[in-house]
Amino acid sequence: MNRVDIKNARALTPPMGWNSYDYYNTSADEDDIKANADYMAKNLKKYGWEYVVVDIEWYSKHGHRTNDEYQYIPFEAVEIDGYGRLLPALERFPSSKGGKGFKPLADYIHSLGLKFGIHIMRGIPRIAAHNHLPVLGTDTTADKIAIANNICYWNPDMYGVNPAKPASQAYYDSIIRQYADWGVDFIKCDDICRMDMPTAEEEIKMLARAIDKCGRPIVLSLSPGAALIEKAWLYSQTANMWRITDDFWDNWKLLKAMFERCEVWEKQSAPGCWPDCDMLTIGKLGKWHKKEWTCNFTDPELKTMLSLWCIFRSPLMLGCKLPGLDKKTLKLITNEKILGLLKFPEGARQLARDDEKAIWVNKNNGKTVIALFNLADKTNKVSVGLKDAGVEGKVAEGTELWTGETVKIAGKALSVEIEPHGAAVVEL
Amino acid sequence: MNRVDIKNARALTPPMGWNSYDYYNTSADEDDIKANADYMAKNLKKYGWEYVVVDIEWYSKHGHRTNDEYQYIPFEAVEIDGYGRLLPALERFPSSKGGKGFKPLADYIHSLGLKFGIHIMRGIPRIAAHNHLPVLGTDTTADKIAIANNICYWNPDMYGVNPAKPASQAYYDSIIRQYADWGVDFIKCDDICRMDMPTAEEEIKMLARAIDKCGRPIVLSLSPGAALIEKAWLYSQTANMWRITDDFWDNWKLLKAMFERCEVWEKQSAPGCWPDCDMLTIGKLGKWHKKEWTCNFTDPELKTMLSLWCIFRSPLMLGCKLPGLDKKTLKLITNEKILGLLKFPEGARQLARDDEKAIWVNKNNGKTVIALFNLADKTNKVSVGLKDAGVEGKVAEGTELWTGETVKIAGKALSVEIEPHGAAVVEL
Amino acid sequence: MNRVDIKNARALTPPMGWNSYDYYNTSADEDDIKANADYMAKNLKKYGWEYVVVDIEWYSKHGHRTNDEYQYIPFEAVEIDGYGRLLPALERFPSSKGGKGFKPLADYIHSLGLKFGIHIMRGIPRIAAHNHLPVLGTDTTADKIAIANNICYWNPDMYGVNPAKPASQAYYDSIIRQYADWGVDFIKCDDICRMDMPTAEEEIKMLARAIDKCGRPIVLSLSPGAALIEKAWLYSQTANMWRITDDFWDNWKLLKAMFERCEVWEKQSAPGCWPDCDMLTIGKLGKWHKKEWTCNFTDPELKTMLSLWCIFRSPLMLGCKLPGLDKKTLKLITNEKILGLLKFPEGARQLARDDEKAIWVNKNNGKTVIALFNLADKTNKVSVGLKDAGVEGKVAEGTELWTGETVKIAGKALSVEIEPHGAAVVEL
Amino acid sequence: MNRVDIKNARALTPPMGWNSYDYYNTSADEDDIKANADYMAKNLKKYGWEYVVVDIEWYSKHGHRTNDEYQYIPFEAVEIDGYGRLLPALERFPSSKGGKGFKPLADYIHSLGLKFGIHIMRGIPRIAAHNHLPVLGTDTTADKIAIANNICYWNPDMYGVNPAKPASQAYYDSIIRQYADWGVDFIKCDDICRMDMPTAEEEIKMLARAIDKCGRPIVLSLSPGAALIEKAWLYSQTANMWRITDDFWDNWKLLKAMFERCEVWEKQSAPGCWPDCDMLTIGKLGKWHKKEWTCNFTDPELKTMLSLWCIFRSPLMLGCKLPGLDKKTLKLITNEKILGLLKFPEGARQLARDDEKAIWVNKNNGKTVIALFNLADKTNKVSVGLKDAGVEGKVAEGTELWTGETVKIAGKALSVEIEPHGAAVVEL
Repeated sequence: MNRVDIKNARALTPPMGWNSYDYYNTSADEDDIKANADYMAKNLKKYGWEYVVVDIEWYSKHGHRTNDEYQYIPFEAVEIDGYGRLLPALERFPSSKGGKGFKPLADYIHSLGLKFGIHIMRGIPRIAAHNHLPVLGTDTTADKIAIANNICYWNPDMYGVNPAKPASQAYYDSIIRQYADWGVDFIKCDDICRMDMPTAEEEIKMLARAIDKCGRPIVLSLSPGAALIEKAWLYSQTANMWRITDDFWDNWKLLKAMFERCEVWEKQSAPGCWPDCDMLTIGKLGKWHKKEWTCNFTDPELKTMLSLWCIFRSPLMLGCKLPGLDKKTLKLITNEKILGLLKFPEGARQLARDDEKAIWVNKNNGKTVIALFNLADKTNKVSVGLKDAGVEGKVAEGTELWTGETVKIAGKALSVEIEPHGAAVVEL
Repeated sequence: MNRVDIKNARALTPPMGWNSYDYYNTSADEDDIKANADYMAKNLKKYGWEYVVVDIEWYSKHGHRTNDEYQYIPFEAVEIDGYGRLLPALERFPSSKGGKGFKPLADYIHSLGLKFGIHIMRGIPRIAAHNHLPVLGTDTTADKIAIANNICYWNPDMYGVNPAKPASQAYYDSIIRQYADWGVDFIKCDDICRMDMPTAEEEIKMLARAIDKCGRPIVLSLSPGAALIEKAWLYSQTANMWRITDDFWDNWKLLKAMFERCEVWEKQSAPGCWPDCDMLTIGKLGKWHKKEWTCNFTDPELKTMLSLWCIFRSPLMLGCKLPGLDKKTLKLITNEKILGLLKFPEGARQLARDDEKAIWVNKNNGKTVIALFNLADKTNKVSVGLKDAGVEGKVAEGTELWTGETVKIAGKALSVEIEPHGAAVVEL
Repeated sequence: MNRVDIKNARALTPPMGWNSYDYYNTSADEDDIKANADYMAKNLKKYGWEYVVVDIEWYSKHGHRTNDEYQYIPFEAVEIDGYGRLLPALERFPSSKGGKGFKPLADYIHSLGLKFGIHIMRGIPRIAAHNHLPVLGTDTTADKIAIANNICYWNPDMYGVNPAKPASQAYYDSIIRQYADWGVDFIKCDDICRMDMPTAEEEIKMLARAIDKCGRPIVLSLSPGAALIEKAWLYSQTANMWRITDDFWDNWKLLKAMFERCEVWEKQSAPGCWPDCDMLTIGKLGKWHKKEWTCNFTDPELKTMLSLWCIFRSPLMLGCKLPGLDKKTLKLITNEKILGLLKFPEGARQLARDDEKAIWVNKNNGKTVIALFNLADKTNKVSVGLKDAGVEGKVAEGTELWTGETVKIAGKALSVEIEPHGAAVVEL
Repeated sequence: MNRVDIKNARALTPPMGWNSYDYYNTSADEDDIKANADYMAKNLKKYGWEYVVVDIEWYSKHGHRTNDEYQYIPFEAVEIDGYGRLLPALERFPSSKGGKGFKPLADYIHSLGLKFGIHIMRGIPRIAAHNHLPVLGTDTTADKIAIANNICYWNPDMYGVNPAKPASQAYYDSIIRQYADWGVDFIKCDDICRMDMPTAEEEIKMLARAIDKCGRPIVLSLSPGAALIEKAWLYSQTANMWRITDDFWDNWKLLKAMFERCEVWEKQSAPGCWPDCDMLTIGKLGKWHKKEWTCNFTDPELKTMLSLWCIFRSPLMLGCKLPGLDKKTLKLITNEKILGLLKFPEGARQLARDDEKAIWVNKNNGKTVIALFNLADKTNKVSVGLKDAGVEGKVAEGTELWTGETVKIAGKALSVEIEPHGAAVVEL
């Protein structure tokens, strides 16, 4: 296999898991991660959910005390080694003591039969540059590769690195090798996907090269979106998933807008290459665990979200607090028929989209699955001609996959009455 | 078949033909068109070349006397019927007299076993709006559907029409039905593809609907580019080909830039849906037939152009004066192996692209074709690992399709020395 | 005097008058204009109000029947002479019959001791270009000087003209001479001031030259805004007033924003050169005379508007229906002390501005006038140090010019309690 | 006097001096500054030249070893005190040892009868924020006021400070008080004038307040340009001079463009408020003192530059190495008649400007001075009507101020033949 095939083999179907951000923000600690992993192992693993991802600023010593003034404390004290590599903050991840990093936590996650992921920021810590820390495996220092005006606009931690300097690749190699040593299975790299900065494209390539070399099949996820469709080829050569939207939250306007994003990326999803609709907002969400709320989506909207993510074959990352998840939501995320859409071998097609409705279709093993979405604010009948959906011959009925109910076909069209903002997924 | 499949069936492989613009500009007359058609029938037809397309302003009475002051004479007298439908200028297309329009010329082209195409501008003639001409099949007039500030920036002839008015669809229906009656097989609609104007998207849809209804399988081509990649889904539902670049001419910078355009559109080409790299500039070019020059491309550049267009499966439209075409160029455009790439059932993939080189690959019937491009200004060896190109097992040699020469494979890579700006297309 | 001094002498103080737009929109007819002129002559003339201006589309035959679909009827029938010069629509201005144009109406206005103004659009009528009408005094035609893609975005009547063609100047000369013959004293030229189109700068110059030559001291007003402050020098060489804002209406947000505009233009007002805050919205306003409403400004807001326009020395054009004007508003627009600020020989200075307040000061004949504005949504005390206002020595009290009341000065600051959005104008 | 009058009194006429940047770049040391000051004291002081300004990065320890890779060494070691205040680098300014800062150098400059200026960057040193240094006179630290994404795009030294935090004003107070203690007479603050960053406007105000309080009449100069003309009022309330152009160098295109800048700012210059055309490029220029070249301007261009700066009343800062200045240039910068234009009480007016010429005029004590500029690439006769220049009555001749020669007036116009890119300044 060539390097792109090897890269693709790391995620032949869309990754499924849980991410700490939507509930814990920057405040997750070791106990939080373990509690969510335990829940997943017990309740979700059998449905295919497997990644447990620690999101942003696990290296921040006071991240767990974040207050309303800042999401990211500027010039914050961080856990860092002598080579400018960030480590889990001891205050929050005590098992990392003695330089063990995330290894003990990764071991725990692996012991549950799950996979372990972490979030990183593009670049090198600012403090490493200001302190002229050496870059491992080179005779140069961080100040020589950091670019002083190449910063993230929303996070104060890093400087982008200069692709013209070989030590920049060495720096990426040094961190990825460390993550591989810890047992990391999944890396979500942030401030890199929509390529606000001129070096982002080169930093994506450095990251991909570092993973190629690290000896562990680490899945690479790029954030934040919206990814640039003109750069689809680049993403497909380097990463396994990339965010096609800015941060998604439990807001109908954002959910409706996702249909446009999916239309644009329709032809780009393939094994190992997954345009990503972002975390699924469900259950309890939070600014961090002391500021929680219940997901604002209605039941029809939740179905619309899951139906779209699944038929589009987006990666699925649960954004919520898993322990204590309500039964209704648990049922939604363990519907095997719906989740099964993720494994369809070919990509789905959008058949129609306007302000009132969207229709997607995919096929597998002679079956046709049609997802009908009512984007209007009132109950509507949503219809599609069978011929338009590529269904040949006579078909009398189908099965709605959320309810298991039979749907009768009258004439040459499938027609379903759907609640406002709701969806029906019919298998014929 | 559904309507999109029917639309796609009109162009299952990329259209091949000749277009009057690159040599005659606005000045082509009936004799010019016939002379080029005759050449095609005699010399090119057997290689698959079939469309003869009359480009812009065939309705302009003085287009053939265009001078250096204007490309398009403002407020020019045009041939137009009582329903605001443009007709071929009698001064230039005498066979159209008596209201016969392009029928006689189309008949002639068809008698040669070729197909006939015309260029149109988005919208309704300005003069029809100012004169309040009736719209056929409605009780309304042109001034009611034309939008006064919806104009083309580079051509003075038309106003865009208002999609909120049913008579706008009626107007498009009235012209397309007329073109069908004339025997038109191909329509290139201009000022519509890059969608500078808010109505362009709706006007594309009106045009597609009119063709669906007209009773003739007219191929629809959209111009000018660059088409918006975010609108790929729309184009695929409505048109058969769309320009992915602004006007292309015989200039290396434009040719090199086409590689970026092809990368972006790589996954969007499919039967009936052809991203279009624009006319092939070869042989004699002109501002009109009295201002001609010989194509500025070097021999290696000509090969690069043809190789890219063919492996990418772009439509091929010859932009030149065909009568008197030099032998060397004639040979290039009748290389059956190269032209055969157009008929490959799947799309090609870009394997690599940087400032110095590009590599594309496609497969058919167990054969692999690799196109290697030297984008550098000096002779370079361009290489690709066989594994990267998806070639399994041992391969000792291949055939270069332009020369027919054998290419030896040393080790695991294909490596070819190529002239500056040149290409090699190797079949393994 | 040089030409700029001569131009300036046409408006040594800011013009004061009435404009038909804010009440009649495109629908004003001869009786409407006369009724408003009569009111002005009787009630306002003695306070300095003198211009009566007929605003947009007096040449439109159906302007008085405008409906909700269009403000400006596209491709509308217009009154026009054989040289492409627009005439008052006979349907609406019957006195213009026999080619007399606005002369009879101007005569009537003059007979009242008032001055007569009209609105024009930049460029030449589209219909003149499409019909190839001759340009007076030249051997060329309108289609040769009109630029087909040089249009107004909000009005469908005209094409901009090509400054490189001498006949373009001839066209402007031909219309201005006609207006001078009619007795026009004031021209408000629209679609020219914010210079959306590349020819606007040159068309301003052509207009100015035409006025220089016409033999009548016509005041030139440029619209719409916002005028470009970088082009202040150009305006000052060519026009007498120019709009520093987009259309102003009876809306607090727009009124508050005017303080920023006035800050920017503070140093540019001088005899003959008046940055213009647009019509004063008072009394009855309308979309046309059948869709009227009463000005939405509160009493404090009305005072703020008038105080700012006067201390800034903006031209004052009443935008309303004058007949039937309520007494309270009439009193506001006839306050001689406030109107007197317009005649101060030097420009006022902004002393302070923030989100809560603005303070302006001017001096004349040893008196200091301070305008204090409360921009906050609640009653506030607005203060200014006397020293900051340039008042030397001890001052014990002043007079508020709206009320005539005495304002006591405590210590070194003037401090006045002002209603929300209100103003106080204090003379010391 | 109010605070604006007090601010204005610090620079009643345009400041004249020398600045180290155009020759020494970041590399100037104590000896360099003294040598230039000595030259000024001896040769220029009597003509009004008085400021000696040390430009950018005097705190950088290796600035004098700057190489071609960086103009500003990223993450460079700087001389800084315990309160985050930068100090002169001891390596380059040895007299500053023992915490004396620039006091000894200022004393030396003052001993020559000259004034001393320094350059500063907007904001607080990045290293102070990363090291959490205390802010003098507060109980807070630098990391609390620095804004992590508020950086200069071209210099890596500072973070902008948060205007919402009172300690930000305290920081500016702390540095300005120190500069006052050192004896600084002039501060050029950089990265603040064109207001790329949202805090720039507030940081200008903080700076102005700090100077108001510091007890020393420090002149405030804002860089870089182009200043925003919409913000003219803000500059006039806070600073004494502000750059109306990006960095100016010895290039005709930049010099010609300055005429447009001067047109825009014509009405904004007044005592204490000087729109600034940037340093005068003359004599020896450099990237630093080891990479020098001779000014590329021709003799006519040098005259044009000096004539424009003087009649426009721009501040004059010599950008060159003074020791060894050639005699011809020395003569140009000591022409008392030309320099005298700076002291005219009112601002000059632009009479005309097009691609070929520009004409400015000013008056003083009954005399009229007309500057005629030939902007064309060939020798041209440049003319102006005397009436247009405001010259009344009959005038037979004038004096050209560069040459002292008599210029005859023929008829009603002044007409002078001028070399390409040259100027004539005629007093009538």
